[in-house]
Amino acid sequence: VTHQSPIVVIDSGLGGLTVARAIRSVLPNERIVYFGDTARLPYGSKSAVTVTTFVKQIIGYLRSHCPKHIVIACNTATALALPSLRAEFPDLSISGVIDPGARAAAEAAGEKLRPVIGVIATEATIRSKAYERALRRRRNHAHILLRSTPLLVPIIEEGRDMNDTVVRLAVAQYLQPLVERKIDVLLLGCTHYPLLKGLFVEMLGMAVHVIDSAQTCAEDVRRRLSAAGLLHRGDVSDRSFQCYVTDDSPKFSELASKFLGFEVDPPTWVKPEELYNQHSAALLRQAI
Amino acid sequence: VTHQSPIVVIDSGLGGLTVARAIRSVLPNERIVYFGDTARLPYGSKSAVTVTTFVKQIIGYLRSHCPKHIVIACNTATALALPSLRAEFPDLSISGVIDPGARAAAEAAGEKLRPVIGVIATEATIRSKAYERALRRRRNHAHILLRSTPLLVPIIEEGRDMNDTVVRLAVAQYLQPLVERKIDVLLLGCTHYPLLKGLFVEMLGMAVHVIDSAQTCAEDVRRRLSAAGLLHRGDVSDRSFQCYVTDDSPKFSELASKFLGFEVDPPTWVKPEELYNQHSAALLRQAI
Repeated sequence: VTHQSPIVVIDSGLGGLTVARAIRSVLPNERIVYFGDTARLPYGSKSAVTVTTFVKQIIGYLRSHCPKHIVIACNTATALALPSLRAEFPDLSISGVIDPGARAAAEAAGEKLRPVIGVIATEATIRSKAYERALRRRRNHAHILLRSTPLLVPIIEEGRDMNDTVVRLAVAQYLQPLVERKIDVLLLGCTHYPLLKGLFVEMLGMAVHVIDSAQTCAEDVRRRLSAAGLLHRGDVSDRSFQCYVTDDSPKFSELASKFLGFEVDPPTWVKPEELYNQHSAALLRQAI
Repeated sequence: VTHQSPIVVIDSGLGGLTVARAIRSVLPNERIVYFGDTARLPYGSKSAVTVTTFVKQIIGYLRSHCPKHIVIACNTATALALPSLRAEFPDLSISGVIDPGARAAAEAAGEKLRPVIGVIATEATIRSKAYERALRRRRNHAHILLRSTPLLVPIIEEGRDMNDTVVRLAVAQYLQPLVERKIDVLLLGCTHYPLLKGLFVEMLGMAVHVIDSAQTCAEDVRRRLSAAGLLHRGDVSDRSFQCYVTDDSPKFSELASKFLGFEVDPPTWVKPEELYNQHSAALLRQAI
């Protein structure tokens, strides 16, 4: 691993591209390898065992890139799998999106003794209580309101935007109990949600801080690389952005630039069975 | 294979349970084995190669049940994979949901020379043109209007019903171009959609026939078994209903009775890696 090694960003599909975009903006010279598990997405409705197995396979597959850091750019995967990933790959540097997001939300809550912090996320992320724990560690007296918002990912993946009436109605429904409880901070606990940030701000008003974990996650990555002396020392001519996906549908290419804010080359297709073979090969090596 | 062998019903998740329910109603004495690929759902946004691989693995896994018939109770899987499944398993009797649905829609269109037939389905089903082909074979002069409705599956899986304002607005949006073109028939091209049938009927009025492929698919299964002399000759005391899923989240058990109309035992959990191992073992046997 050198300063020229890539940063690997892993997500169930497209959402993690908002994190990759923030990393590109904070660390413009880095090589980035993005992996979207589009054949098996979404992760947000699935169990811890399933999601952990999927992400372990992906890391096993991407090890050959010798990443200097791996970002789990999916809230569900961070919530359900991060500790077991660190245990499984003790030699790799791995971080997620939940701790940086919770830190930013706790800071945004300011001086209030009992701030009200709302978190919206997928069903699996909410069920894991990972945000609750991460927020409690920093603001033990906060009121924490958790709300799963399962329609938002499909709404965004369908290409609908904040002017669509179905989107506005669904978001208003989901936010209503949070508005009634007068939240001070809304934490967007899913990497898709920054695409609707404008709508959340519009509906909640300027007094509520809307926290997007992509930005704070990227800053966390910079801090880690800096501490390890691994920030890229070249200039932007060295940078690259390489994508892998597990499904070969045209969807990724169609939507990627929307999430990313810049154009990328078509992704490399890795069939899910290649991930399992990788895994079987590793088991076989262990057995021999 | 005997008359006592089970009917296997395969779906990406819960939707195929509406087909299983119709089979139970038409053929009350049969043993039914249901497989929901809940770790890798949905299929509707994914590519033909991915979906075909998934379903081949599932059939390979379930072969040991010696099914007398296999129903691909998922429109996307039928549209993308049925011909390759029949080629891969020439000794098994396999049918899908598209041909029965198209036949029922063509009949419902009645005597009109140029009936207008609307089809709503997932993106992958629409993109495959499978319904268009199946309808054209029967009603070459029909106007066929195809519309992908990607939000309906997540809406139904979230547990929302026809009284929910988001559901009503989304359905109204999706149906509007079909209403403007004065459709005679609406074909529900996804096994989830029968759960919203009441809403489609309400919005379209009694002059439009709403065709649910679950019912016609079940009748098609009865016809096939009868022709093969394989209808179960016992009584209802022999019947059984066994479920397999690939994800161990509580969701399947929570929603299954809603789709099915009766209670079932908790499903057996088959991890996706067991399907790949099965597949690898088969490849290994071929290689030796």
